[in-house]
Formats: sequence, structure tokens, C-alpha cells
Amino acid sequence: MFRFTKRMHEQAGLPPGTTVHIGERKVEKVRISLFDYAAGHLEERVIDKVEECYPYRDKPTVTWINVDGLHDVEIIEKLGECFGIHPIVREDIANTGLRPKLHDYGDYLFIILKMLYFEKGRHEVTVEQVSLVVGKNFVISFQEDGEDVFDAVRARIRSGAGRIRKSPTDYLAYALIDAIVDGYFIVCERVGEEVELVQERLLGSPDPESLHTIQSLRGELIDLRRSVWPLREVVASLERGESPLIHKETAIFMRHVYDHTIEIIETIESFRDLVAGMIDIYLSSISVRLNEVMKVLTIIATIFIPLTFIVGIYGMNFHAMWPHLGWRYGFAAVMGVCAAVAVAMLVNFRRRSWL
Amino acid sequence: MFRFTKRMHEQAGLPPGTTVHIGERKVEKVRISLFDYAAGHLEERVIDKVEECYPYRDKPTVTWINVDGLHDVEIIEKLGECFGIHPIVREDIANTGLRPKLHDYGDYLFIILKMLYFEKGRHEVTVEQVSLVVGKNFVISFQEDGEDVFDAVRARIRSGAGRIRKSPTDYLAYALIDAIVDGYFIVCERVGEEVELVQERLLGSPDPESLHTIQSLRGELIDLRRSVWPLREVVASLERGESPLIHKETAIFMRHVYDHTIEIIETIESFRDLVAGMIDIYLSSISVRLNEVMKVLTIIATIFIPLTFIVGIYGMNFHAMWPHLGWRYGFAAVMGVCAAVAVAMLVNFRRRSWL
Amino acid sequence: MFRFTKRMHEQAGLPPGTTVHIGERKVEKVRISLFDYAAGHLEERVIDKVEECYPYRDKPTVTWINVDGLHDVEIIEKLGECFGIHPIVREDIANTGLRPKLHDYGDYLFIILKMLYFEKGRHEVTVEQVSLVVGKNFVISFQEDGEDVFDAVRARIRSGAGRIRKSPTDYLAYALIDAIVDGYFIVCERVGEEVELVQERLLGSPDPESLHTIQSLRGELIDLRRSVWPLREVVASLERGESPLIHKETAIFMRHVYDHTIEIIETIESFRDLVAGMIDIYLSSISVRLNEVMKVLTIIATIFIPLTFIVGIYGMNFHAMWPHLGWRYGFAAVMGVCAAVAVAMLVNFRRRSWL
Amino acid sequence: MFRFTKRMHEQAGLPPGTTVHIGERKVEKVRISLFDYAAGHLEERVIDKVEECYPYRDKPTVTWINVDGLHDVEIIEKLGECFGIHPIVREDIANTGLRPKLHDYGDYLFIILKMLYFEKGRHEVTVEQVSLVVGKNFVISFQEDGEDVFDAVRARIRSGAGRIRKSPTDYLAYALIDAIVDGYFIVCERVGEEVELVQERLLGSPDPESLHTIQSLRGELIDLRRSVWPLREVVASLERGESPLIHKETAIFMRHVYDHTIEIIETIESFRDLVAGMIDIYLSSISVRLNEVMKVLTIIATIFIPLTFIVGIYGMNFHAMWPHLGWRYGFAAVMGVCAAVAVAMLVNFRRRSWL
Amino acid sequence: MFRFTKRMHEQAGLPPGTTVHIGERKVEKVRISLFDYAAGHLEERVIDKVEECYPYRDKPTVTWINVDGLHDVEIIEKLGECFGIHPIVREDIANTGLRPKLHDYGDYLFIILKMLYFEKGRHEVTVEQVSLVVGKNFVISFQEDGEDVFDAVRARIRSGAGRIRKSPTDYLAYALIDAIVDGYFIVCERVGEEVELVQERLLGSPDPESLHTIQSLRGELIDLRRSVWPLREVVASLERGESPLIHKETAIFMRHVYDHTIEIIETIESFRDLVAGMIDIYLSSISVRLNEVMKVLTIIATIFIPLTFIVGIYGMNFHAMWPHLGWRYGFAAVMGVCAAVAVAMLVNFRRRSWL
Repeated sequence: MFRFTKRMHEQAGLPPGTTVHIGERKVEKVRISLFDYAAGHLEERVIDKVEECYPYRDKPTVTWINVDGLHDVEIIEKLGECFGIHPIVREDIANTGLRPKLHDYGDYLFIILKMLYFEKGRHEVTVEQVSLVVGKNFVISFQEDGEDVFDAVRARIRSGAGRIRKSPTDYLAYALIDAIVDGYFIVCERVGEEVELVQERLLGSPDPESLHTIQSLRGELIDLRRSVWPLREVVASLERGESPLIHKETAIFMRHVYDHTIEIIETIESFRDLVAGMIDIYLSSISVRLNEVMKVLTIIATIFIPLTFIVGIYGMNFHAMWPHLGWRYGFAAVMGVCAAVAVAMLVNFRRRSWL
Repeated sequence: MFRFTKRMHEQAGLPPGTTVHIGERKVEKVRISLFDYAAGHLEERVIDKVEECYPYRDKPTVTWINVDGLHDVEIIEKLGECFGIHPIVREDIANTGLRPKLHDYGDYLFIILKMLYFEKGRHEVTVEQVSLVVGKNFVISFQEDGEDVFDAVRARIRSGAGRIRKSPTDYLAYALIDAIVDGYFIVCERVGEEVELVQERLLGSPDPESLHTIQSLRGELIDLRRSVWPLREVVASLERGESPLIHKETAIFMRHVYDHTIEIIETIESFRDLVAGMIDIYLSSISVRLNEVMKVLTIIATIFIPLTFIVGIYGMNFHAMWPHLGWRYGFAAVMGVCAAVAVAMLVNFRRRSWL
Repeated sequence: MFRFTKRMHEQAGLPPGTTVHIGERKVEKVRISLFDYAAGHLEERVIDKVEECYPYRDKPTVTWINVDGLHDVEIIEKLGECFGIHPIVREDIANTGLRPKLHDYGDYLFIILKMLYFEKGRHEVTVEQVSLVVGKNFVISFQEDGEDVFDAVRARIRSGAGRIRKSPTDYLAYALIDAIVDGYFIVCERVGEEVELVQERLLGSPDPESLHTIQSLRGELIDLRRSVWPLREVVASLERGESPLIHKETAIFMRHVYDHTIEIIETIESFRDLVAGMIDIYLSSISVRLNEVMKVLTIIATIFIPLTFIVGIYGMNFHAMWPHLGWRYGFAAVMGVCAAVAVAMLVNFRRRSWL
Repeated sequence: MFRFTKRMHEQAGLPPGTTVHIGERKVEKVRISLFDYAAGHLEERVIDKVEECYPYRDKPTVTWINVDGLHDVEIIEKLGECFGIHPIVREDIANTGLRPKLHDYGDYLFIILKMLYFEKGRHEVTVEQVSLVVGKNFVISFQEDGEDVFDAVRARIRSGAGRIRKSPTDYLAYALIDAIVDGYFIVCERVGEEVELVQERLLGSPDPESLHTIQSLRGELIDLRRSVWPLREVVASLERGESPLIHKETAIFMRHVYDHTIEIIETIESFRDLVAGMIDIYLSSISVRLNEVMKVLTIIATIFIPLTFIVGIYGMNFHAMWPHLGWRYGFAAVMGVCAAVAVAMLVNFRRRSWL
Repeated sequence: MFRFTKRMHEQAGLPPGTTVHIGERKVEKVRISLFDYAAGHLEERVIDKVEECYPYRDKPTVTWINVDGLHDVEIIEKLGECFGIHPIVREDIANTGLRPKLHDYGDYLFIILKMLYFEKGRHEVTVEQVSLVVGKNFVISFQEDGEDVFDAVRARIRSGAGRIRKSPTDYLAYALIDAIVDGYFIVCERVGEEVELVQERLLGSPDPESLHTIQSLRGELIDLRRSVWPLREVVASLERGESPLIHKETAIFMRHVYDHTIEIIETIESFRDLVAGMIDIYLSSISVRLNEVMKVLTIIATIFIPLTFIVGIYGMNFHAMWPHLGWRYGFAAVMGVCAAVAVAMLVNFRRRSWL
């Protein structure tokens, strides 16, 4: 979560509305793809020069421009100017350290979301920022990387199945948000498996390692929360249909995404509850073990320390001892006393149920 | 609670409005039963083919169609189309991993509830999802399994006793919800007994086992909460009578169910409070035991270690010792000193109230 | 708190509006008393047959019917029918396991309260349910038992002192609620004394017993909360004067009761805060004691274990030893070394301030 | 905090509106002082008989009557009747166990506040109740004791400096409340010093004493909170200027007092945070110490116990031993082995960084 | 955080509206600088006598007066009178112990902010109070010290770049607030680094020192929160554009600052979460270490104490022993038994996985 902060401060001191890329550069070259469609029409293009997008501004059909890679600030600037996007929005698009939010600029909605996924072979959740600008007849999406979470949406547009081709831009926005939120379930499941694993290990044989795992799980859940909680507000205000850009029919679908978001939030909160409980388990299991260690020491010591004293008595070099050292059964008698003491101790421990 | 998540993600990536069964298949064959009634009229049928339900759509009498088993998606689809149910609702009906909710679609209300019960011979709470679609002249209920929680309602319809036969669909919906909520009390009572049992065991003789029981109780309460908290909102908005489908007379009854829900929530919260306190009890009882173990060790060791030193002195082989080893009362004197030291220690311990 | 749940579930499955007595039977025979009064008029009667109450329904004077004992469901039914009380209200009156609430049925208000008191010679708080039905010209109060908390109100009616005889039914309702809330102060004081006692004992000499007492105090406070928190909402909505049955003059008095309720809630919350702190005290006092025990062991052991080693050296049977065993001051020298070691240890402990 | 409760219950059972003094009698004789002023007019009197106040009721100038001492109920009654104060307000004035509140009775505002100060030579905060009745042309203030917190206000009236002489009664009320809230800062500072002191002592050398101090600090902060939190609501509703008695110009000043109240609340909450953290420090410092004690024991014991065993071997009386007891370097060899073991142990401990 | 309180109480008892400097004197001499600008106009001056500012009051251009140093109360008074600032505002400007707030006085807005920065070479955050008075054609800013956080804004005015020269006073206010909030990111980053450092040290080798660091981190975070939480409300109400002084175009920028504030609050809350978890780590790592220490002691003691007993037996001086002391293999036999016992113990410990 320090990442959030670090990225932010790079911009500190710059005048507002200055578009500066803040974040890692995840792709070599910015890739732009364009879909233009209507009920009976479909055009799909890969854009080389950003200027090729300009003519689509005034077409009544739905235009979806997807930009992969944010480091080429000029592209954002040019698209922004063409589609009338406020400079402060452009600044936010290029800054990958922001929290999910929805701002209504009248002519268009500006939405920031966090896309979560596990990269192949990596153990940690990757968080990527996605910005959507939703206008009357266009949707522009900005991604850090060209991950294929939107491929299902592309397939649906191409096939013309479902409502997507017959619906305005708000439905496309819904489809994109839905695709992102669906990804959260997979992350939640993976985290849930990790939580279950740690819990089992803890109840079995807890070691200092476990604590580190718990602490890192906690950190991961804090990160997840920071991505999902604000998302809830975003989707809720989309669902309420406050903007005229969101039609009533789409609001029903948005409500569905909202339900999913709540579902995810509840799951995360349950995980947090469980992880909080784990520390109690860990602490008490350490105490239980200490108790066991101490019992072993106490049993051995309380049995043998008095015995050592007894045999020590007859190791004294006094000439006159009682019983006389020459007594034939002296050795047997002392050994008998020792045995009796040991048995008495053992009975005592058994009564305390230490054995 | 991982179940919720796991089920959900199976659907991730599918286009919205695709009806897919998510969850276990609990019954062999989907069973459909139908009641059609009015003040002086009653028809009860078992439906073989879903098409048999179609004519009831336009009858002014109250029609209650109950579907047991959700794996046959086609049935949900057909019923949905006939009664004008939104595709996204059909999707939700087939997905058993959702949280309780109420959505108002104007012509009908869509309600998801969780039915809780203890299956015979099993120790854990079974959670089953029930969906209700409440229209002007029909109620369609979807269950995972054919559990008999609705039998009391069926009996009342058959006998014609009470208001049910004279009332519109909202009263039937109330009766079904009330039957489900009543089941919660039984679950609460069983959980309460378990809580009491664990508490008694803890105050008696706590063992590491207890901790596992506490942690699983905690998990169970988290599950219960997740079923009941959203239910509260559902019933509250039914009670407020925001939909014209809920008449004022029924709202009074809904308020009654709302009271029950609050009652249950408070009980669960009290359980949570108590379970939270149990960990404190457990931790402190471990500490108390460690204290006892250490006291025993300390008492034995502090008495005998000095004594062993004393007898060790006279085990030394120096020729010249004080008192002279040939002294007649040497042995008695040393034993006396040992006894004195032991008594002094014991008095000391008693004063510290360790004995 | 399990009581709440247990009583509730007995009713599970019954059709709504079925009046069933749920709870203990606290009195042998149901007693009904009746007051009918106005500014210059007073009639006090003991009712044998419930039908004797019927004529008072249409009298313009204020009629107060008090019913002690809820097991005779028929009486509740008859009164309910005569005074036009909704079946669901009658069901609630007979069910003693409900939480405080206020429902406005237009013609009358239905109020459930919890009366708290210490029965003579018993240590635990007794919780009794009181239901009030407040109509335009009648108040019907239902009690489980004939406790005398309302006697002060009766005396005021008889004497005609104060406003009560000149005021409508809402003032009578206020007087009854005020009498119940006043009882809470006495309970709070008793609980407060208990809290203080436990706290003192804990700071003095905590024993495992204390933990049980703390846990039971906690349970008692949970019970108290469950009685008082909902009461607050009840009184608040009476104060707001939303119902035309509550006159503006009475609302001022209701506000006074509301202040008292807040006062009680704050007191309970302070108790909860203190009780939560007690567990910390208990745990740390156990740790402190363990520390002391360990210090004693450590001091004794670290002094005498090295000494025992030293004397052990000269207990060895080697012929050639250094110093020679025949040396005259050998014994004194060894004893001197032992003393020196002991003193060094003691100085060390003092420097660590363990002594 | 028990005081609150104890005082309250004395009144339980009395009819509402009965003025009874509840609380300590702090002054011998009730003192009444009167100010009557306007822009160019000032009259200051000490009142002997309460009837002397009556003529001021109808004067258009601002009249401030200050009553020190609440035990003479008759005075409250008479003033109340003359100035038209509701009996329930008179009851509250005489009851010193109430929480801060503001009630608007249309013709006048009734305000209860808590005055906090340190009495000379005493260590604990003294809490005193102040009631204000603010009418159109009069302010009556009731104090338990004649503390001089209002002297600054009196001085300002006498000197005619500032706005006070030119302003209506609400400004006088503001000045009095401001004087009381100013006193809170001094209390906060003193408590803050105590918190800092305890914190320092804890980080230095914590002893069981500290725990008692922490617990009493906690109690003090609970008391402070109970005085200040409700005050916030009181001042907030004065600031909102809901009553026509509060003029817009005064509302600006009330906002200032409101800021102060928030400031104080935040300070108290910070103290609570810090005090909560102290218990963690205390508990962990106990554990650290236990660790140290145990390390000392372990080091000494693990070094000397094996050594004692070794020398014990050669204390055995077997005739045939290895090395032969008559061997010249036997003693030296054993001592050498002992030294080697001890050094090995010490190295080991150093490696574990126990030394 | 005690600073807040201490400063406040110095003013206790003074009549409202008395301007008194409360706080440290950070600069030798008060410095006043003035900017007067419009789209095509710029005047920059250093003011010697406060009266030089008067003529700018009535100019339609934007005038920014920046005052460094608050100890010369007369300057605040004079500026206040000239620009019509309420006495209570002047009092607040001179008092550096206030929390962030926004008050709307109709003609002007009064804003208090906290500026946070690390002074060169110092380890702790410095908190400085900044007050802004934003009128129709003037902004007056008051700083304790002449820190250069506003230099970026000055540079932008001078260069005429961006919107600043073309915008009214609200944009200047925005630019100043934005500069302050940007400073928070740097502080957050530094604190974040400290948190990470402590966390790493804790997971490595925790020492009692760590606890002090944690407690001081906690205190620092409390201070940060107290500066940032109220800031949020300030910026939120600026963003809502309730005052006619804030134009719609500026509100968009204010929303941007608001986003930053939320970002910072979330970061602080995450830090608090992590720091709270650290104490758990610390406590459990102490327990783990105690466990290790005890294991070492137990292993050594339980192996050698029985052995010492065995060799002690044959140190007894009885004449008749079994086996006979003259037995040739006696010594070897006893040593063999000792070795066997030791091996048995070691196997046992290995099985418990203590080794």
C-alpha cells in the first residue's frame, strides 16, 4: 500500500492539470484498438496514430477506444482534447496510484477502477488501474497493461450476441465494469484458499513463520479492501442512475454488479474476521506449548531434586550416621524411600492431570 | 463462507442474463407443485411439464408455484419467460451462492432468502437458498431441496383457516418468509446450547481442543450473520410498503417478521460477544495453569536445592571440617539445619499464599 | 439471554395471530383490576369476569385495566376483541420473550417494555415483560406477575394529586413507563456496586474465581443492554409525538423519561467499559505473579546451583586434589568461596532490583 | 460515575414535577445575586428574599439572577413560578446528577452543563452542575457551589467593555457557557500531564502500581467524556440557532464555543487512545522482564547442572574408576573438562545473543 | 498532541474577540508580501507598513497578502479591520492551536489548515498553522513561519502560466490548499518508510526499544489524523460549492484536492492498522523467545538432573551397596545407564520436535 503514496508524491508541486505518467511502464508501446458498432454495424480497427480516432467523435454509433499503456502522455492529451476531456481528468488517467472513483462531468462520466488478477507464476495479486470515460456515443478505456480481461466483452461485440450491440454506451461501460468485478471473485477464492491453508497450519503446528504469513495476509486484505470499498460507492451511484448517461434498463444491470460488489466486500470482511482470530490462536498455541515444556521440566525436576537430596545425605562423610552406614539394608532402605517419593510425586501429578 | 465465493466465480466471465445453475444438485428430479386459490376456491396440482403452469398466468386467483431443485435451468427459463421475469433475475434464481436481497421490478418483487436448518443426524447448519417472485396474482418460489418448511403454509391453505385464502399474494409471501424466519429460532437455540456448553467446559477444564471449537463457533456465527443481516433490510423494505404489491394490512404482518429478525440479530450479536469473551477466558486459564505448574516447581526446587548444597558440604573429602566429621551429633545437626531451612521456606511460601 | 430465544421458538410454525402463552406461569390466577377516572370522578374495581370490562369501552372517562398473569389466553383474546386489538398484538402480549417496541396501530399504541427488579433474597435481576395498549379513552396493561411497581401510580390516582386525574390516557401511559424506568436506576445502582466490588477484589488479590464473576457480570450487562437500548427508541418516538394519541403537554414529560433512559444507557456503557478493562487487569496480575514466582526460583537456584558444584568438586575421590585435602584451611577456603559467590549473586540481583 | 446513578435513584418513585434536592449540600446558605443591565444601565444586587426578584420579570432590560446552592428547594419553586418555568424543569434544576442537555420550552431555553475544575489541594476533578434558564429578558443560573468561574463575566458586565452590555440575553448565555468550556481546557491540560507522566513511568520501570493508575485514568476519562460529549450536542443546537431566542450574531460566537468543544473532545479521545496503548506496553514489559529472569536462570542452570553431574561422577565410591582416582592429573583433567563445557555453553549463549 | 491543549488554555478567561498570539514565535519580524494580479496585470510588493495594503481592498483585481509570523497582533488587527474581518476570526488567526475548519462569513470564507513538513535535519513532523481569508477580490494568508511551500504558487503567478492569472480568488485559494495537501504526501511517504522499517526490525529481532518506537509512531499517526480528518470536511464543503465565492469551475479542482485528502486518510488508516498489528507481533515474538529459552533449560535440566541423582547414589557411603562398589565394571555400568537415560531423553525431545 505504500505504492499508492509513493506514486502520488511524485506529482506534488506540479500545477494542476499537468498530465504526467506516474507508475511503472508495463508495455513497450502503447496499443490502441477501436470498436465502432450499432445494431447492424461493426467496425474493428487497430489504431496506429491517435488522430485516426478523431472522426469517430461525431458518429452516432457507439465507439469504444481502448488504450493499453499510459506512459505516452501525448496520446492521452490528444484523445482528451478531441473528446473534450477536462485536463484534470487527463492528469488522473496518467496517474496509476489513485483510488476507484466516479466523477460526473455532465457530458461524460469519468470512472477509475482497480483490476485485480494473479499473473501467471506469481504469488501476489497484481493491481492495475483502469480508467473509463463514458460519453454519449463513445467509451474510452485506459489500461496499464494489455491484460485480456476485456476479451470476453470483445467476443460478445463481435458475435453480436446478447444486448450489447443494441445498447448505448452505458451498457458497454456496464459490461467492462462487470468483467473487472468478475475478476475479483477469482482473487477472493485464491485468498480464501490461502486463509484456509494458514488456519489449518495454525491449528496443526504453529511456528514463528505463521506470524509473518498472517501479517502479510492482513496486508493483502487491506489492499483488497482499498480497491473494493470505493468501488462500491462507484457502482452504487451508477445504479442510482443519477446521470442521464445511464439509462433505466442499464441501471438494473448495474444493480447486479452492485450485488456482486457487496458479496465481495462481505467475503473480504469475513476473511479479516478470521485472520484477526488467527493471532489469538497463534498466541494461545504458543502459551499451550510453553505450558507443556514447563510441565516436563517440573515433573522431572520435582521428582529428582528431592531424590538427589536424599542420596546426598548419605554421601556425607560424618562418622556417625543414622541409619549406620554399615547397616546391611541401608542401601535398600534409601532406594526404597527414593522410590516411594517418586511414586508419591507421580500420583500427585496424575491427580493434577499433568500426566 | 468460502462456499459463497467459490460458487460465484464459476459464473465469472459469462454474459449477464445467462441462467447457469451454480451450486450442489440436491434433488434427483425437479418437482413442481402448484396451488391456485381464492376465498372460496382451491386447486392443488403436481406439475409434470412446466407448460402446465402457463394458463395460470392470467387467472385473477392467487397462484403459488413451488419449484424444488434448481439444476434444470430450462424450467427456470420457461417459467421466467411466461411470467415476464427479467433474465438477470433468472440468472440469480439458478445461482445458489447469493446473499438475501429484495429487488423491485415494478410488476413483481424478487426476493432471495436463506433457509437455515439442521439436517437430521448432521451437526452443522445447512444453508439453502430460497427465491420468491411475487407478482400481482402469482407467487413462484424456488428451493434447492424439497425441505418441508413450507408444509405448515400448505396446511393452512388447504384448511382455509386464517386469512391466507382471503388475502392476495403479498400475504402468501409473508407466510413463506415467516416460515423461514421461524426456522431461524430453532437454529439460534441450538447454537445457543452449543455456546453454553463450550462456556461451561471452558470454565471447567480448558484444553487446546476448546480453541478449535471456539474458532468453529465463530465461523458459524459469521455465517449466520451473513444470512440474517441482509434479511433485515429485505423485511424492513417490505414492511415500509414501498411497493404497491404490498398492501397495508400485510405490512402489519411484515412488521412482525421484522421484529423477529431483530430478535434473531440481537441473539447472534450476544453470542458473538460471549464467544469473543471466551478467548480471554481460555488465554487466562492457560496462564493460571502455567502459574500453578511454576509454583510447584519453585516450591520443590527452592526447598531442596539449598538442602542439597548443605549435604554436599559434608560430602567433601577435606580432612579438617567444621564441625569435625567425627562429632557425634554432626549428622543430627545437619539434618536439623536442613529441617529448619525447609520449614522457613514453607512458612515463607504460606505467607505469599502459594500453598 | 438464551431465554429470549427459547421462548420464541415454541411459537415457530404456528399461524400468525394465534395467541399462545410463551413463558413461565408466575401467578396462580389471573388478576384484573380496573380504574375509571376523570377530573372529579374515580371508580376502582377488581374484575372477576373479563366481560365486566366491556361497558367501559365507550365511556369518555379514562379507563385503566391492569391484567396480572398472561397464561389465561382467553382473557387476552376477549379483551382484545372488545377493545379492537389486532390479533398479532394479542399474540405478542402473550409472548413474554419479546424486546421492547412501540407499534402505532392508528386507534391505539402498542408498547412492550421490560420491567427489571431484584426479587427479595435473590441475587439476579428479574426481567418481566409489560405490555401497554394505549387507546383514546383506555389503557390496558399486561404484566406477568403482580409486582407492585405500579402502586405509586395507583396511589396518585386515588389521591387525585398532581395532573394524573385531569389528564388523558397518554399521561397515564407516561406515568406507567416512568415507574418502570425508575426501577432501572435501582438495578443500575446494584450492578454498579457489584462492579465496584469486583474491581476492588481484582486490584487486591485476583483468583480464577474473579474471571467467572467478570464473565457473569458481562452477561448481565448484555441482558441489561438488550432491555434498555430498544426502550430508548420506544420513548424517543413517544416524545416526538408522532401519534395524535400523545398530546404536546405529555411529550414534555416523555422527554424527561427519554433523558432518564439515556442516563441509564450511558451508565451501562460505562460499566461495560470498566468490565472490559477488568480482564486486562486480571491477565496482567497473573503475569505479575508468575514473574514473582519465577524470580524466587531464579534467585534460589542461581545462588545454590553453583555452590553445589563447588562443594561437589571436593566430594570427588581423586587422591591428588588442589588444594590438598589435608590442607588445614581447605574447608574454610571453600566455604569462603561459596559465601563470596552468594554475595556476588545477591549484589547482582539487587542491581537488577529483583530484591 | 456511580455518583450519577446513585443520585438518580433517590428520586425513583416520586411523582414527576416534584422538586427534590438530590446531591451534596455544598454551601451553608443559598446566595442569590442579581445583575440588571442594558447599554447605558447597570444594577447589581445581592438578594436576601427571593421575592425581590419578581419585579425584574417584566423589565425590558437584561436580568441575570445567579443562585448558588440548590438545597433550598423553595427558592427554586418560587423563582420557577414567577418566571413561568415548567415544574419538570424545576425538578431537573434541583437534581445534580443529570447529563448536559438543552430543552427548548418556547418561551425559554433550559440548559444543563457540567462545570469541571480542580479544587485547591485536591487531586481529582470536581464536577459541578450548572443550570441555565434563558428567557427573552432574563437569565437564571443555578450552581451547586459559589465557584468563581463566572467572575470574569461579572467583571465584563461591570466594566461595560465588549459587547456584553449591548447584547440581549443570548449573548450572556454564550458568555457563561464559554466561561465553563474554557475551564475544560485547564482540566484537559492537567489530565494530559498525568497521561504523559504515567507514560514515561511505564517506559521506564513499570510496576503493578502503574496498572491501578492506568485504570483510574481510564475512569477519569470516561467521566470527562460523559460531561463533554452531550455538551457538544447542546452547543451544536444553540449554534444552529433553531430557537428565536438565539440571534444570528450570537450564533457566530456559539460556533466558536462549538469549535472549542470539538477540540476538547478530540483531546480526550487522543488520551483514551494513548491510555489503551499503555496496557499493551505494560503487559509486554512484564513479559520482557520475565524473559530476562528466565534467561538468567537458564544460563546459570545449564552451565552448572552438567558440571555438577561431572564432579558427581568422581564422587562415586567405586573402587575401579576411569581415569584411575590415583592418577596424578585426574583432578586437573576433570576441572579442565568442566571449564571446557562451561566455555562451550557460554559461546552457545553468546551466539543466541542471550549474553 | 498535548501542544493543542496547552496553547488553547492560555486564552481561557479572556473575553471573546480578543486577539492574542498563542504559540511559539517562529520568525524574528513579521514579513508581509503582496501580489496583485489579473489576466494582463501583475504587481508584486514587499510590504513594510500594513497600511500600504489598504488601497488594494477596493481594487477589482485579485490581491494576495501573505503574512509570515503571527506574534505582532496589531498587524492582524489592522488588516482585519480594513478588510472587515470579524473579531472572532482575528482571534483564531493569532491562535496557532486550532484544528482545521472552514467558516463562511458571507462576505468571506475563513479557512484554517495545518501545514505539515519535515524541517531539515529534524526527525519529527513540524505542524504549522495556516489561515486563509478568502474574499471576493482578496486572499489573505497567515503563516507562522516563512516556509516556502507557497513558492510554487508564486512562480505560477509570476509566469502567468496555467489558469491562475485568469481566475478569481477561489482558484488562488485552491492553489494554496493544493500546495499544502501535496506536502502531506511527502510526510505520508516518510512515515510509511518508518513503518516499513519498524516492521522489518520487528520480524527480525524485536527488542524492548521497538515498543517505544511503535508507541511514538502511534502518537505521530494520531497527530496526522487530527490534522487530516477535519481537513476532509473543509475541502468537502468547498467542493460542494455552497458559498457563492466558490465558482463551479473551481469546484472541479477542489474535488481533486478532496480525492487527495481521501487518499491520504486511507494511507494513514492503513498505517494505523499495521501499527496495531505490530504490537501483536511484538508480544508473540517475546513469547516465542521465552519458549525457546525454556526449552533449552528444560532439555539440559531434564537430562542431567536424573543423571546427577544416579551418580549421587554411588556417592553414598553405605558399606553394602548393590552392585558391590568393588565390582570391576561398576563404573562402566553406571556410566552406561547414564548414557542410556540421556539418549532416551534426547529421543523423547526429538519426538516432541524440541530439537
